[in-house]
Amino acid sequence: MKIKVNRNILWTTLFTDFLVQVGVKYACISPGSRSTPLTFAIASEKKIKSFLIVDERSSGFFALGIAKATDSPVVIVTTSGTATAELYPAIIEAYQSRVPLIICTADRPAYLRNTGSNQTINQKNIYKNHIRFFAELPLPFPDKRNLKILLTSAYEAIITSLLFDKGPVHLNFQFEKPFEPDSITDTIDKSLLEFAYSFSEELLSKDSFKIDSPKSELKFRSIDLITVGAGLFYNKFIKLLSKLSSGLNIPIFADANSGLRFSKKEIPNLISNYEAMVRRKDFNKFFSPGTVIHFGRNLTSQNLEDFIVQSKAKRIILNEYGDRFDTTKKANVIKSTPELFLQKLLNSRIKKASSSVLQFLKTLDGKIDVIKSETFSNSLNEVNVILQLLELIPEDSNLFIGNSLPVRDLDFFAPNKNRKINVFQNRGASGIDGIISTASGIALASGKQTYLVIGDLSFYYDLNSLILPKQFEIPLKIILINNNGGRIFDYLPIAKQKEIFQKYFVTPVNIDFKKISESFGLSYKLIKSLNDYKKVIVNSNKSKSCLILEVRTDSLFTKSLKEKFWNSTKKILM
Amino acid sequence: MKIKVNRNILWTTLFTDFLVQVGVKYACISPGSRSTPLTFAIASEKKIKSFLIVDERSSGFFALGIAKATDSPVVIVTTSGTATAELYPAIIEAYQSRVPLIICTADRPAYLRNTGSNQTINQKNIYKNHIRFFAELPLPFPDKRNLKILLTSAYEAIITSLLFDKGPVHLNFQFEKPFEPDSITDTIDKSLLEFAYSFSEELLSKDSFKIDSPKSELKFRSIDLITVGAGLFYNKFIKLLSKLSSGLNIPIFADANSGLRFSKKEIPNLISNYEAMVRRKDFNKFFSPGTVIHFGRNLTSQNLEDFIVQSKAKRIILNEYGDRFDTTKKANVIKSTPELFLQKLLNSRIKKASSSVLQFLKTLDGKIDVIKSETFSNSLNEVNVILQLLELIPEDSNLFIGNSLPVRDLDFFAPNKNRKINVFQNRGASGIDGIISTASGIALASGKQTYLVIGDLSFYYDLNSLILPKQFEIPLKIILINNNGGRIFDYLPIAKQKEIFQKYFVTPVNIDFKKISESFGLSYKLIKSLNDYKKVIVNSNKSKSCLILEVRTDSLFTKSLKEKFWNSTKKILM
Repeated sequence: MKIKVNRNILWTTLFTDFLVQVGVKYACISPGSRSTPLTFAIASEKKIKSFLIVDERSSGFFALGIAKATDSPVVIVTTSGTATAELYPAIIEAYQSRVPLIICTADRPAYLRNTGSNQTINQKNIYKNHIRFFAELPLPFPDKRNLKILLTSAYEAIITSLLFDKGPVHLNFQFEKPFEPDSITDTIDKSLLEFAYSFSEELLSKDSFKIDSPKSELKFRSIDLITVGAGLFYNKFIKLLSKLSSGLNIPIFADANSGLRFSKKEIPNLISNYEAMVRRKDFNKFFSPGTVIHFGRNLTSQNLEDFIVQSKAKRIILNEYGDRFDTTKKANVIKSTPELFLQKLLNSRIKKASSSVLQFLKTLDGKIDVIKSETFSNSLNEVNVILQLLELIPEDSNLFIGNSLPVRDLDFFAPNKNRKINVFQNRGASGIDGIISTASGIALASGKQTYLVIGDLSFYYDLNSLILPKQFEIPLKIILINNNGGRIFDYLPIAKQKEIFQKYFVTPVNIDFKKISESFGLSYKLIKSLNDYKKVIVNSNKSKSCLILEVRTDSLFTKSLKEKFWNSTKKILM
Repeated sequence: MKIKVNRNILWTTLFTDFLVQVGVKYACISPGSRSTPLTFAIASEKKIKSFLIVDERSSGFFALGIAKATDSPVVIVTTSGTATAELYPAIIEAYQSRVPLIICTADRPAYLRNTGSNQTINQKNIYKNHIRFFAELPLPFPDKRNLKILLTSAYEAIITSLLFDKGPVHLNFQFEKPFEPDSITDTIDKSLLEFAYSFSEELLSKDSFKIDSPKSELKFRSIDLITVGAGLFYNKFIKLLSKLSSGLNIPIFADANSGLRFSKKEIPNLISNYEAMVRRKDFNKFFSPGTVIHFGRNLTSQNLEDFIVQSKAKRIILNEYGDRFDTTKKANVIKSTPELFLQKLLNSRIKKASSSVLQFLKTLDGKIDVIKSETFSNSLNEVNVILQLLELIPEDSNLFIGNSLPVRDLDFFAPNKNRKINVFQNRGASGIDGIISTASGIALASGKQTYLVIGDLSFYYDLNSLILPKQFEIPLKIILINNNGGRIFDYLPIAKQKEIFQKYFVTPVNIDFKKISESFGLSYKLIKSLNDYKKVIVNSNKSKSCLILEVRTDSLFTKSLKEKFWNSTKKILM
């Protein structure tokens, strides 16, 4: 039987079928002409939910958010030219935090490169420094040889992205006109399609992926401290971690960005106020761990890092992919899933740590909690904006925490909570770009109430993405902490260089956030007081539309409260 | 004599001195901590005008605009991480259109790569596919060997960017704390500074750059057509071109983006309505050039391209850098400056072309002008928005023309004008990104009235850059043609696929442009009629503040006028 086809559409339809078979459920598509075959095939596929997003920078970060929330790969489609480069910031973040994205860039035929052909740049491995796999596909041609190349490349890309080297992958699709399904280019035999389908099936049937237990022998007798950095940790991990730490009296210093401080089941031995402890330069007179085991990304707290280095502790870092999250280069990095490793520890003979040390840390933690509450809870300061949120938002909400000051404030001040909050952030490259779009993706794909805490510079940076909540009806709640500029620099020594400092570091943007919100058709509210803030948060908890809350804060006031807090907590041990 | 220094500041100060010596006058700086030494040294230098721009994407394009307007290199400073990737779209445009930019990215020390260290990505040659030079500088160290490496790298970067392979270049600066000038790291001898200054002087003294006359023999006896694409052409070129074409009866088809249609001194033999002519598939029955000489980038008009290919003309393409702006790969590319080549032609014995052919084209051109005026001049359509501007804006203004529809409308419909207008556009990669920022840079650095014609998608794309006109008091006039989406797709075959078309191609953004303008503190006006438009343009001509004019147009109405026009003009020759 003969079938009339447009070869570009045949090509992209087979590719789309393959995506569906491996379970791809979302695509973010930006408009363009060259990408017509990809857009047509993917947008026509009902098993994939497609989003049209004009600004590719937003699209990349939105896809990142969806992939984070679902832990599954998201397809991104762009046309040729600078459109491809617009994705780069999001790709870097995905690379650094191992989030699966399948980047499909449309391109003109390779023979037009370096001819001045319109919108033709060099897209060949354009993300080279931060991509887990790249393939340049040949020009579509309806024969077995070429379809095999297409399907094998798709297979390699997806299997890499999902399993073997998790993260973003890139396929560059060349297309020659015509692009439309009703512009027939070839008549093919039905058997060619059958070949393609059975070849896909064959590729997908053979896959099996096993993670081995850690092979190296464990060369330590005791564990004095467990530290956990940012990452997504699931129930099984939390259960095993709780069992190990309570059985062996091991204190756990968990970064707020690990989410462990907000897991429903309390984790025994979790210490949340370690930042206040280790700010005392002599804290290792009171606690000096010999062996430290670390899970997740690097710690947000530089002081905790310094403390561990100063203690000369032996460090063991667990990572599924062997990523060496260790700036000292002295740690022993073990490539294994955290769960398998914890299981192995539970089966080993490890000496119990001293219960008095644990008790000392717990008591100290409790005392610091009291000072914290006294210092921050009665005014509308930047720390309290976050602390109140942790109290007031519904169980099992998402909290996306912006970079720069908010992420540090959360880590330094968030207490243990006996309620579940899912914490997200972009800590792969820690950019201030793409925050609203990533949070929008998470809110959409998770279907859970999602609260974003963001500073005014980050908010301004990702203005374009305010189009997303309206366009896709995403009930994201944005808490905009407006302290008029990049106030993190207040905390750095350059603040002393007054003239240069004010102009080139603080950099207030001076825009009217109310009007901006309204121009995108979004609800806006200016928060006037702490009570007002609490009321608005509680009222917004059930709302199904997007809301932007601007909280104008005095950053220097918050800074003075923090200084007071650090001073008081240091004195406890005197 | 001993001097106490911070080695990072010493390093960046010597680099800044070098920049000043080669004549760098502008820097665009984005905030960050790691980049403190660069920011401090450059912002403290009074001979360089520094601009602080939060969004690096805007910063890159703003710098591009300044470099275009001044034909001199602009320095860009960013901190580490995704900030660097945000520049990539502008760098690609600069690469493709050979605009000199000196990209200075701050980085953490190389030994922290792949350790999970915060905001540390792989910046090593991160723009690899689109950069003319890259160097990774060593960590600053105050000795002769290291200062030599710094200065030699700076020299190589600048000399490449300006002369040998014009375009963007990249220097990656590693820094270790402390960054501030008053944090002393070293005590150096004064002789080290003297060494650095004399070494700089030595580097700069030896430079001489000569362009040779074209070496190849001219293998043609006559010239039947000269075509000119986008590019910046100066008076000397225009004079030589006029002389050659009038002496030899050569018609000139000049792309509107070449600016030649709007040079003060009329260029004899310039034909502006060639698009209407070559749309007749049989036009080479009337005019069939044997030899065509081309200057500048590729032509905007695909129909003119097709016509020349169909005529089997011998093509000679002139390019200073040997860039092969030729999608056919059959042209003879001569590496020379256009001026030297024209001089050579004037000194050669070339046969006069037929005056009757020239006269035929001129008469036809005039007839088409009449039809054009009858078709477009009485309503507020997308073509007339541009035509009126060409009439009404002051002599020697800048016109920045957005990509997608506006750039084609200008090329297809702009007539010869006996008044000077400087035309700018981003046609290197022809992205719809970075248009407002590039135009802002041009307006600022040229000091001339600057008018930007931009579609609603491009306007939305570069919203963040609306901060620039207010922040730096740039009197840019923005004519926003709002036809609610990407209406260029109306002209493509995919428009027939109704459902997919509306959702994934037209993509209206539905935002309130009035409120957006106001939120950035910019004046806004909605244009209600053609008369209104004319009046507002004339009134705005002397205004020194930024103004946004929204013209809501019906794209399908304009499309119908165009079809009427193409049909009428085809009939002239029947």
